[in-house]
Amino acid sequence: MKRKVAILGATGAVGQRLVSLLLDHPWFKVDVLAASERSAGKKYGNVCKWILESPMDPGIGEMVVVNCDIESLERAGNVDFVFSCLPPEVSKNVEEKIAVKYPIFSKASTHRLEKDVPLIIPEINPDHLSLIPIQRKVRKCAGFISTDPNCSTIQLAMTLKPLMTFGVSKVLVSTMQALSGAGYPGVASLDILGNLIPFIPNEEEKIELETLKVLGDFDGEKVHNANIEISASCCRVNVRDAHTQFVYVQLESKPDWTEVKEAFKNFRGVPQLLKLPSAPELPIVVRDENDRPQPIFDKNAGMGMSVVVGRVRQDPAMTIKYTCLGHNTIRGAAGASILTAELAVAKGYV
Amino acid sequence: MKRKVAILGATGAVGQRLVSLLLDHPWFKVDVLAASERSAGKKYGNVCKWILESPMDPGIGEMVVVNCDIESLERAGNVDFVFSCLPPEVSKNVEEKIAVKYPIFSKASTHRLEKDVPLIIPEINPDHLSLIPIQRKVRKCAGFISTDPNCSTIQLAMTLKPLMTFGVSKVLVSTMQALSGAGYPGVASLDILGNLIPFIPNEEEKIELETLKVLGDFDGEKVHNANIEISASCCRVNVRDAHTQFVYVQLESKPDWTEVKEAFKNFRGVPQLLKLPSAPELPIVVRDENDRPQPIFDKNAGMGMSVVVGRVRQDPAMTIKYTCLGHNTIRGAAGASILTAELAVAKGYV
Amino acid sequence: MKRKVAILGATGAVGQRLVSLLLDHPWFKVDVLAASERSAGKKYGNVCKWILESPMDPGIGEMVVVNCDIESLERAGNVDFVFSCLPPEVSKNVEEKIAVKYPIFSKASTHRLEKDVPLIIPEINPDHLSLIPIQRKVRKCAGFISTDPNCSTIQLAMTLKPLMTFGVSKVLVSTMQALSGAGYPGVASLDILGNLIPFIPNEEEKIELETLKVLGDFDGEKVHNANIEISASCCRVNVRDAHTQFVYVQLESKPDWTEVKEAFKNFRGVPQLLKLPSAPELPIVVRDENDRPQPIFDKNAGMGMSVVVGRVRQDPAMTIKYTCLGHNTIRGAAGASILTAELAVAKGYV
Amino acid sequence: MKRKVAILGATGAVGQRLVSLLLDHPWFKVDVLAASERSAGKKYGNVCKWILESPMDPGIGEMVVVNCDIESLERAGNVDFVFSCLPPEVSKNVEEKIAVKYPIFSKASTHRLEKDVPLIIPEINPDHLSLIPIQRKVRKCAGFISTDPNCSTIQLAMTLKPLMTFGVSKVLVSTMQALSGAGYPGVASLDILGNLIPFIPNEEEKIELETLKVLGDFDGEKVHNANIEISASCCRVNVRDAHTQFVYVQLESKPDWTEVKEAFKNFRGVPQLLKLPSAPELPIVVRDENDRPQPIFDKNAGMGMSVVVGRVRQDPAMTIKYTCLGHNTIRGAAGASILTAELAVAKGYV
Repeated sequence: MKRKVAILGATGAVGQRLVSLLLDHPWFKVDVLAASERSAGKKYGNVCKWILESPMDPGIGEMVVVNCDIESLERAGNVDFVFSCLPPEVSKNVEEKIAVKYPIFSKASTHRLEKDVPLIIPEINPDHLSLIPIQRKVRKCAGFISTDPNCSTIQLAMTLKPLMTFGVSKVLVSTMQALSGAGYPGVASLDILGNLIPFIPNEEEKIELETLKVLGDFDGEKVHNANIEISASCCRVNVRDAHTQFVYVQLESKPDWTEVKEAFKNFRGVPQLLKLPSAPELPIVVRDENDRPQPIFDKNAGMGMSVVVGRVRQDPAMTIKYTCLGHNTIRGAAGASILTAELAVAKGYV
Repeated sequence: MKRKVAILGATGAVGQRLVSLLLDHPWFKVDVLAASERSAGKKYGNVCKWILESPMDPGIGEMVVVNCDIESLERAGNVDFVFSCLPPEVSKNVEEKIAVKYPIFSKASTHRLEKDVPLIIPEINPDHLSLIPIQRKVRKCAGFISTDPNCSTIQLAMTLKPLMTFGVSKVLVSTMQALSGAGYPGVASLDILGNLIPFIPNEEEKIELETLKVLGDFDGEKVHNANIEISASCCRVNVRDAHTQFVYVQLESKPDWTEVKEAFKNFRGVPQLLKLPSAPELPIVVRDENDRPQPIFDKNAGMGMSVVVGRVRQDPAMTIKYTCLGHNTIRGAAGASILTAELAVAKGYV
Repeated sequence: MKRKVAILGATGAVGQRLVSLLLDHPWFKVDVLAASERSAGKKYGNVCKWILESPMDPGIGEMVVVNCDIESLERAGNVDFVFSCLPPEVSKNVEEKIAVKYPIFSKASTHRLEKDVPLIIPEINPDHLSLIPIQRKVRKCAGFISTDPNCSTIQLAMTLKPLMTFGVSKVLVSTMQALSGAGYPGVASLDILGNLIPFIPNEEEKIELETLKVLGDFDGEKVHNANIEISASCCRVNVRDAHTQFVYVQLESKPDWTEVKEAFKNFRGVPQLLKLPSAPELPIVVRDENDRPQPIFDKNAGMGMSVVVGRVRQDPAMTIKYTCLGHNTIRGAAGASILTAELAVAKGYV
Repeated sequence: MKRKVAILGATGAVGQRLVSLLLDHPWFKVDVLAASERSAGKKYGNVCKWILESPMDPGIGEMVVVNCDIESLERAGNVDFVFSCLPPEVSKNVEEKIAVKYPIFSKASTHRLEKDVPLIIPEINPDHLSLIPIQRKVRKCAGFISTDPNCSTIQLAMTLKPLMTFGVSKVLVSTMQALSGAGYPGVASLDILGNLIPFIPNEEEKIELETLKVLGDFDGEKVHNANIEISASCCRVNVRDAHTQFVYVQLESKPDWTEVKEAFKNFRGVPQLLKLPSAPELPIVVRDENDRPQPIFDKNAGMGMSVVVGRVRQDPAMTIKYTCLGHNTIRGAAGASILTAELAVAKGYV
């Protein structure tokens, strides 16, 4: 029997991906779609401006959207847990109230850096889920809030994890991020046609802070941030899906680039061991061609759940540099939440 | 009386910019247009696939293209010096033969790193033109070859020059480069629509090497490379003109970002002092807005000859980071050659 | 002495063009900038999201925006007449009130088809300005409202006018329209990247109706619509500026395409005779190349005020077909309003 | 047992689609990949610049490409028939020689209008395959050449077929065609970024002529062209896949648009009756939304084999107008060839 889930913020760009990825999910079934008051009471198919290339499932389109509060959720169904992709300004209040009763897997940035809230990338820090019982005690709630990092953080951290064995001391990352990361309507066409926008509000700060928590150590009580100096510069480019990053890392043990490439190739995490339904066979796919990864060709690697790495090479000023790419609304958002939920189910937290 | 010039490679993307920028030049006049054998003997307007948005001058369109050899040049006119924007595989032979008699200002990469060849950015190293008499002695030629750096190098080096006073020890640069830098037909539309290509052959090596020579010291006999560790990662994006760069620098004297911003604003070079015709009033234009510079809005700053800098800020892993942008076929190519020629004229080398 | 003008809707896409085109206008001077309440009381440079590639004039940026009502206009300055580029839902009320006292040249669609309101393309129907005294009598106002057609109508009608001599009986037009026509933020980038949108609300109806009025005859009292069957299909494409149209016309006298091409070339109107400041030398520029006109190369023909025609040829199902292109925010909007105002001034209506 | 096929021109844009669509085909199996001499003797994966978003099958990548002549085909395998997507300048000679022995299903334009060559759209004129025995007699060959129309013709003719019952007398069509139709490298990015090209060589003539043959009647000996006046205007736009068309038709029986819409919906052809493997359930999918069809959302309707129609409405100058869209390299090219081959197999010609 599948677990029933609600999606908060179901009409947005990430909400649509969640709906789409959960259509044939072996463990989960979408039972409730919730969104803003403007949409509540109407059919999903009528209020959702669908932006995915594959069409909306007709059955989903017939579902009636409800409000994002606990009473509406309960009236609408009997869900086991909740996915949230609410905008940050809305999420705080809503999520805390719902977490009193339900587990929430949230893409919102609101709670990510709070001490008792897990910030999870299942391949990297599955043990951070142990914050859940601590959180429940602190917040006196039956449910909990678990969060996923920012999309850019996820793909960067995925590639840093296998490098931790070489001693990561400094990381510089330049991102070229896709339009879908700004939601819909998001970026105006007049702003981006033949252009790029070398600024994304708060994005650099998120990468610089969240990465440290994700790569940090959990000592049974709290997470100790990783001791890395990270600097990010972020740019919006005229690409539909998939963020590309140029990464420069300083490694203490000064490995050769071939060792680093091997480390990328051999990286596996708990989701792979547990064969979680949304876990890609390879968390990191390494390409040998000079001009890869590229958004249109590589975004769907591992069903959009693999991070693709290319051009691993020696760096004249740091130790190693490489390019990485991830599908920002799958591995970087909807797929991330689902994989975390799968992990939480497998570990018995849900 | 204006000096008469020939343009080698006049039908290419940079050649067209040269033709266009020289139309009303106060010192120079285009007298000879030279290109490959395929075009020789035909009217420029008939063989040149014009890619600039402003239309080709009708008089220029009527000029008959000649071959790229010294005999053809001499038959066609009586030029004072030569601009070369030949492709690298062609330029070596051609330029060396023509330099026996004529001064050449070349955008080709071929001779840039040769010891007796000046690699000039007029605001940075005007004194390197003193290599000319040395080169003439070594090569026993009446003319000479002077070169301009790669387009990405030019805009990076322009912004590094005012930072030298703080002690530049490490530089990391990520570039997002325009289509026009690949010439015509260049990048296929199917390769770049909704995409980016995170690789440009030889570009990173050029930036990493040329910058050291340009910022190096001339001791009266030779140029000593600057002692900086530079790492570049280069990407092609779907932008018509202007390269954007994310730059991270480590500075020995650890200045505050406000000091660095002032240094950018106050930077002036010899071209500004001499009021050379193509010198922009401000070599570096600093923007205060978070989301600038952007290609479509900033490419024409200073008639395309200024480098535009934005988001100067402290760097958590280095010292300072910032964004810079330059018009790749004006400041990065045709305008660079013209400014160097103006400097050479002003200094009496032509 | 220049006439002083106010611009209603000054912060929008067309308002910006008006501001920009009037900067150095020989007859007119921008005295008052008016916009919505949200902007009123603030500096233009702070509230206007500038979308033109050439930078905003600093002096204009310092002007304080006022509300769009007659009291605010009068407090702010002492204008001779008013340009309006208000959105249609706002314009009706506002324009009627202001017209009680001031002449208004409006780009809004609201009043275009009203019987006593001139709908002017200066090269086509300058005599329709004679509706002004009639309107003043009917509406009992000291000012008046004169309107310009929709951008697509303008360029189509410009090319139909010289064909009227051959007897135009049917016209079919397919348009490929630029993003700037939808204003800002307008079309979302996710909607148009690698895509087109084959629908623009109300656009086809505007073309089908307005063209008949513009090409109609004024009998001294009213305008009789031209007797033409017109069908339009409109598409939004990923182009910044300039609409392109495929036009098919049935002509009663069955001319050869060479005669039609001559008719385009020889077309001149009253603005050319009067040498109005914004009148292009050639209202229609004819290109001989098969692949022209194209937006990026032809949008600025005649300073953006010429319509460019190409591929005039025999049509297997109608009589003649051709391609035409016009700059939608210059000839199709801001420039159209200015030229009409110049005509009205020259004719003594202002 | 599957029939073995060879693909001539396997490395091109259409060849790649053929390879991709035939991967899991129930009736056919790719046995030989042939291309130009430049590629012959090398692995497909090494010589083919793959442009599809889904990755190349690794097994196909290992196949060695052979020359496009009958000897090479025979040495390489034992094929039952041949698909040809050779460029027109090459196809004539090659196809005629191979047809001496093998059936060829060709996308090349070369033979389309020859009297004894079938020009097939399986939903429209399956009976034209009866030209095969006539062709064999005339040309004294054991194989034959069957052709598919131009991509734009296919989608237009598909929508005209159900209108024939209303008496089609005139058709005007404006096309907005995708980049992939120009092959690879095809359109230069500098030519199309923020632009469109209102000319595609020979495209309008192909549409105007081929449509008449496809919709024509076969009397047992030859095909009589349909008696329709057709005019086409063609434009290249910045879209990856799928052509969009604005169609205006004059219908003798003056039906209401609702009848026409029904006719589109109810249209079925022989491929649907025979349930051919590549036949879409609905040859024409009708959308009710005003702003559909759009390339990114509708190109894959019916696995790319359906033509999508929208905005069926009354026309003020003709009878009916509508928008249609088809995937140019599936329904318009590779899928068309496969469906024709399936029909020929089902009818016993292969």
